[in-house]
Amino acid sequence: MEQNIKILGFAGSLRAQSFNRGILNAAAQLLPEHVALEIYELNDIPVFNQDQENNIPPAVTEFKNKIKSADAILIATPEYNYSVPGVLKNAIDWASRPYGDNSFEGKPVAIMSASTGMLGGARAQYHLRQSFVFLNVQTVNRPEVMVPFARDKFQDGVLTDETSRKKIAELVAALVNLARILKK
Amino acid sequence: MEQNIKILGFAGSLRAQSFNRGILNAAAQLLPEHVALEIYELNDIPVFNQDQENNIPPAVTEFKNKIKSADAILIATPEYNYSVPGVLKNAIDWASRPYGDNSFEGKPVAIMSASTGMLGGARAQYHLRQSFVFLNVQTVNRPEVMVPFARDKFQDGVLTDETSRKKIAELVAALVNLARILKK
Amino acid sequence: MEQNIKILGFAGSLRAQSFNRGILNAAAQLLPEHVALEIYELNDIPVFNQDQENNIPPAVTEFKNKIKSADAILIATPEYNYSVPGVLKNAIDWASRPYGDNSFEGKPVAIMSASTGMLGGARAQYHLRQSFVFLNVQTVNRPEVMVPFARDKFQDGVLTDETSRKKIAELVAALVNLARILKK
Amino acid sequence: MEQNIKILGFAGSLRAQSFNRGILNAAAQLLPEHVALEIYELNDIPVFNQDQENNIPPAVTEFKNKIKSADAILIATPEYNYSVPGVLKNAIDWASRPYGDNSFEGKPVAIMSASTGMLGGARAQYHLRQSFVFLNVQTVNRPEVMVPFARDKFQDGVLTDETSRKKIAELVAALVNLARILKK
Repeated sequence: MEQNIKILGFAGSLRAQSFNRGILNAAAQLLPEHVALEIYELNDIPVFNQDQENNIPPAVTEFKNKIKSADAILIATPEYNYSVPGVLKNAIDWASRPYGDNSFEGKPVAIMSASTGMLGGARAQYHLRQSFVFLNVQTVNRPEVMVPFARDKFQDGVLTDETSRKKIAELVAALVNLARILKK
Repeated sequence: MEQNIKILGFAGSLRAQSFNRGILNAAAQLLPEHVALEIYELNDIPVFNQDQENNIPPAVTEFKNKIKSADAILIATPEYNYSVPGVLKNAIDWASRPYGDNSFEGKPVAIMSASTGMLGGARAQYHLRQSFVFLNVQTVNRPEVMVPFARDKFQDGVLTDETSRKKIAELVAALVNLARILKK
Repeated sequence: MEQNIKILGFAGSLRAQSFNRGILNAAAQLLPEHVALEIYELNDIPVFNQDQENNIPPAVTEFKNKIKSADAILIATPEYNYSVPGVLKNAIDWASRPYGDNSFEGKPVAIMSASTGMLGGARAQYHLRQSFVFLNVQTVNRPEVMVPFARDKFQDGVLTDETSRKKIAELVAALVNLARILKK
Repeated sequence: MEQNIKILGFAGSLRAQSFNRGILNAAAQLLPEHVALEIYELNDIPVFNQDQENNIPPAVTEFKNKIKSADAILIATPEYNYSVPGVLKNAIDWASRPYGDNSFEGKPVAIMSASTGMLGGARAQYHLRQSFVFLNVQTVNRPEVMVPFARDKFQDGVLTDETSRKKIAELVAALVNLARILKK
């Protein structure tokens, strides 16, 4: 029998109508059997300050615990200024600290991105992958899910583009497969 | 007669004893004639949320105005997780928005970094340079100032390493030179 | 009266029907007044070996001289394996050597790229920009010319896509403008 | 009983006294039990030309076969112009082609680098990792082996620096471990 897999998902945008939360919502509809996806909101995570590491904000502690208890992580990120949004990088910075308590250690992670432009968030993904070398994350190589021209691919906040939905389903399946190998 | 040049400096760490604020403080002591450096603290800039763009936080408005009225920008950044700290990227994201109001447009910018490790923050610098292509910033190529093993190079919070101080003076001179060319 | 500007162009692909040579050919038809573009072929440049630096191959010497005597450089590059083609990087490596004789020093450079995929060669461009920090090149920020789905944009080897042609004309104009500023 | 593991190693420099061939030679002395390392020289691989894909040069065919029959790949690369040497990228480009015959598909790969400067080749490593996403390689995250100031760490062509030798042994062990997991 297949193992249960718990995925934690979060989006790198706080915007209420975020396309990236939209592709996470699509992923939630495209899960394989025995897989659950919890979507976590980054809204309460404050700006990182190393001087607060002895007194970690409650939202950060919660975020770190969610990551640690998940079998896999699914990140949906916009691209801001040709790189990772500060809001997402800030949450990752918190979760990697304090020294010796990297919540991501060894986790399987998949990245997807949506943008209104033609590159679909690609530049943010490669910068994120570099951070994941340090965090010792097992990052899924394929498929790469980049949703360009996002405005044309949603209706009433729901991702309706079939090509994108199919790619997201493939990415989630690859993530779950990796998580099952690592869990053995 | 030489033109007056106003540099705005900021550090990508909120830590009170930040080495990167330390190298900014060193820069303040190493200015050419007719050059002033104002150091701005990012502490009051909240996490970016695009839904707040119609109601921009006062600290962000102040930051954007400081950038716009400066002739040049000097950034001192640590490296978090092999990339730009979320705190710094978040401030840059705010300053680049709303659409059509990129505060950095056309500005000359220099980057320096300090870290406790051997690479001196290099990985953060190259990611930042990629963002600066989008922001249409004129980024100084040389010298590159990376201060590795920072713990050994400060005494009582003051950068005492002569090699690093010399490089910082050269970088500030190159930035001022570029600012003067662009101001003509 | 406007200064004459000599641009040296080269493509990062040796393929006879290369789309990137195709966009260089398009650039040659889109030059401003008083501007000449010479297209150089990299075919005769051998694989770099530092042990040959005392006995530089004639094709390399010729390439270096062409770069040095140009006022500006225009590079058209495909993307191989998410980065700069070896063939292009190899030619750049030769031109940067021997130590102290970097042919690109201080030159204005513009990059464009074409690919059959959706990203239009973007990943190669950002890696190239990182090399250009070391080479102390003045790289044009805007516009970025990336021609995706190149197969659909050429007829009989000629770039016919009007959007792409317009962008290329803008890029060449920006490069010429920068070259004229630096030549003063 | 432990499985036998065959590693193919190659260096991104053709220089006879290359420090990177030197760290490969060190790796050959630091192998775990039941592991063999064959070092392949890239000297005979010509500059890539897609038009030759129907008539692949014999050295390329040999290189591709060596990669395919290896259980793991160990790359030692210098950094040229803040990126991957053209000579190395060119060999990788050949090995990834023709379309549908990527010799690296699914292979475990480890990267190490040596340089005469302070960064030890770091910038080349991160660019290489981006190519490995496309090539669907399983790249070892840790340890990262970067040997800076290489001139001080060799005697008569032999790597004598104990810290570097220890790191190389750890990297090879991590690569072998990954290869054994993937071989099951």
